[in-house]
Amino acid sequence: MSAASAIIAPGSTIGILGGGQLGRMTALAAAVLGYRCHIFAPDLDPPAGQVAATTTRAAYDDFDALARFADSVSVVTFEFENVAVAAAEFLAGRVPVRPNSGALATASDRLREKRFLDRVGVATTAYAGVAGAAEAVAARAAIPGPAILKTNREGYDGKGQIRLAPGDDVAAAWRRLGTVDAILEAMVDFACEVSVVVARGVDGGVASYVPAENTHVDGILATTRAPARIAPAVAAEATRAARAVADGLDYVGVLALEMFVTRDGRVLANEIAPRPHNSGHWTIDGCIVSQFEQHVRAVCGLPLGDPERHSDAIMENLIGDQIERFPALVREPETRVHLYGKTAVRAGRKMGHVTRVFARGSLG
Amino acid sequence: MSAASAIIAPGSTIGILGGGQLGRMTALAAAVLGYRCHIFAPDLDPPAGQVAATTTRAAYDDFDALARFADSVSVVTFEFENVAVAAAEFLAGRVPVRPNSGALATASDRLREKRFLDRVGVATTAYAGVAGAAEAVAARAAIPGPAILKTNREGYDGKGQIRLAPGDDVAAAWRRLGTVDAILEAMVDFACEVSVVVARGVDGGVASYVPAENTHVDGILATTRAPARIAPAVAAEATRAARAVADGLDYVGVLALEMFVTRDGRVLANEIAPRPHNSGHWTIDGCIVSQFEQHVRAVCGLPLGDPERHSDAIMENLIGDQIERFPALVREPETRVHLYGKTAVRAGRKMGHVTRVFARGSLG
Repeated sequence: MSAASAIIAPGSTIGILGGGQLGRMTALAAAVLGYRCHIFAPDLDPPAGQVAATTTRAAYDDFDALARFADSVSVVTFEFENVAVAAAEFLAGRVPVRPNSGALATASDRLREKRFLDRVGVATTAYAGVAGAAEAVAARAAIPGPAILKTNREGYDGKGQIRLAPGDDVAAAWRRLGTVDAILEAMVDFACEVSVVVARGVDGGVASYVPAENTHVDGILATTRAPARIAPAVAAEATRAARAVADGLDYVGVLALEMFVTRDGRVLANEIAPRPHNSGHWTIDGCIVSQFEQHVRAVCGLPLGDPERHSDAIMENLIGDQIERFPALVREPETRVHLYGKTAVRAGRKMGHVTRVFARGSLG
Repeated sequence: MSAASAIIAPGSTIGILGGGQLGRMTALAAAVLGYRCHIFAPDLDPPAGQVAATTTRAAYDDFDALARFADSVSVVTFEFENVAVAAAEFLAGRVPVRPNSGALATASDRLREKRFLDRVGVATTAYAGVAGAAEAVAARAAIPGPAILKTNREGYDGKGQIRLAPGDDVAAAWRRLGTVDAILEAMVDFACEVSVVVARGVDGGVASYVPAENTHVDGILATTRAPARIAPAVAAEATRAARAVADGLDYVGVLALEMFVTRDGRVLANEIAPRPHNSGHWTIDGCIVSQFEQHVRAVCGLPLGDPERHSDAIMENLIGDQIERFPALVREPETRVHLYGKTAVRAGRKMGHVTRVFARGSLG
């Protein structure tokens, strides 16, 4: 057995960069398998820290704190992709970091991500890099229809994006984004948005959950329906694409590939999330082994679990003051309520989610 | 709304007396609903402390520590019944304690428990209290067949029990138990052992899981099968009995009633467990709302969840060195592995369990 495939045994400590709800749900899944978690996050009272054996409060560029963190854990993973590439690279010199920091770097730069998708044979919408006003104009000439100009980095949940209609001034839009490196993407007139959550183990084995169908409101995921209402051939292509991404990144852990399904049945990749994903939350209640347990299994070198679902499910996010629906939601049968332990309610903040569970096969 | 039925809102802290696996799984369920937990236990590194926001290490008779604990939580519950009656009574003067300490007192004394079962119309095997050698002999005369002499208190998992065959010296057995208050119980020639896990809310509403069928080895639960293979009328009587116990104790929280089913189909109660119970662990993987979430819902004054199962299940405990089967078990599809974060492996110690999940209805 190679060092890379050695098992990190239950009882060991998993380090998690980031203290939000994804880290919290990962820590809960890790606990079921008998692992301890050590959360590293700059925030006061991070949601994940409430359920972890140890929490370090420090900045992601505090390399002394990162070194101590590395010494205290058997493996490091992360729960978000936007600020930790340097931290992940630093840690990787001291302790296994899974997924690898290259995957993180690819997924945290939209242009690099699109070029990677091209390279591994996963279709995307038309796109062009925009590093200056002249490039913006040239890109717009090549992609003249409805399009979106996005910052290459640090956008999420619809932030850092400007929609362009025919006639809009692309150079002005680029300046409004802050004159940072950007990407122009043709908007897709899609039939639906789907995602596939896939786990890949240290041995290269993969396990995919059924494609799920997503709706967004204001750029934020609102609902996920599993399985998606798509033709079997479309589901197969979506699954193939997610696996190609995981293989191409030499990935260890769980990732999600978000895709558009066009009206003529093509599958176009939109975004890689190199971590457990909001559109996989339904697996906690619909499957024996959730996306979070799969992530733990993968990063610890355990065999992946069965991704088959025992139930169909519809997940609904509770955003901002939607958490006030809690008293009604907790009365609903067939509904599991998940709250993230966040004290401050803010507009657009993910406070929790609910999963409504249905007999397998009843959602199509 | 009366004070007793006021909701303890998510974000509040639940205090748990005891730090073992039942507290751990309760804390994990509490976290899903957005609660924090504060564990109070005398042990170093208790399993529940690894997943709780706060842990106090102190003895159950350290009333200063208990007072500080009470001040830091919104409600107190417990995860075991053998040592905490005085602590529960002390805490109840300061903070809601659910279930009530009277339920704890009843369940932690076998003779008091049997008399309570008589009073609420739940059948038991023949029994007699034994507080001295002469009483032992008299009890044996009244119960002359195969019987078990048990300590009234502090026995669990088969400890503190002596089986008596015809001709055995009952007075000698009583001395061997340590001349403590004891109870002589006629052994039941049962067809199977079943249990019903029932939750009762602050409003008196109840929710029962389907009766489950248990096997024991060396006095310790080995497997649970849900649902039990019993006739509908037997299942109805078992469920009625568990509800009668919960109502009779004015109980808030989850309890389990362990019962024998005789070869002629009678249901005889054996033991009340005033807490989530090992025979209800299958509900984590077989139901949307597990026994642990029900317990949290009940003690926090939330409405109870739907106790219907989405799947049938067989739970198997991992006792002592059976934890070494982990590498094989974690490879099994349809199997969820639960480990409790205990570092020391000891004979008879519950280290974890596995739940094998089957399509609903396939286990009968």
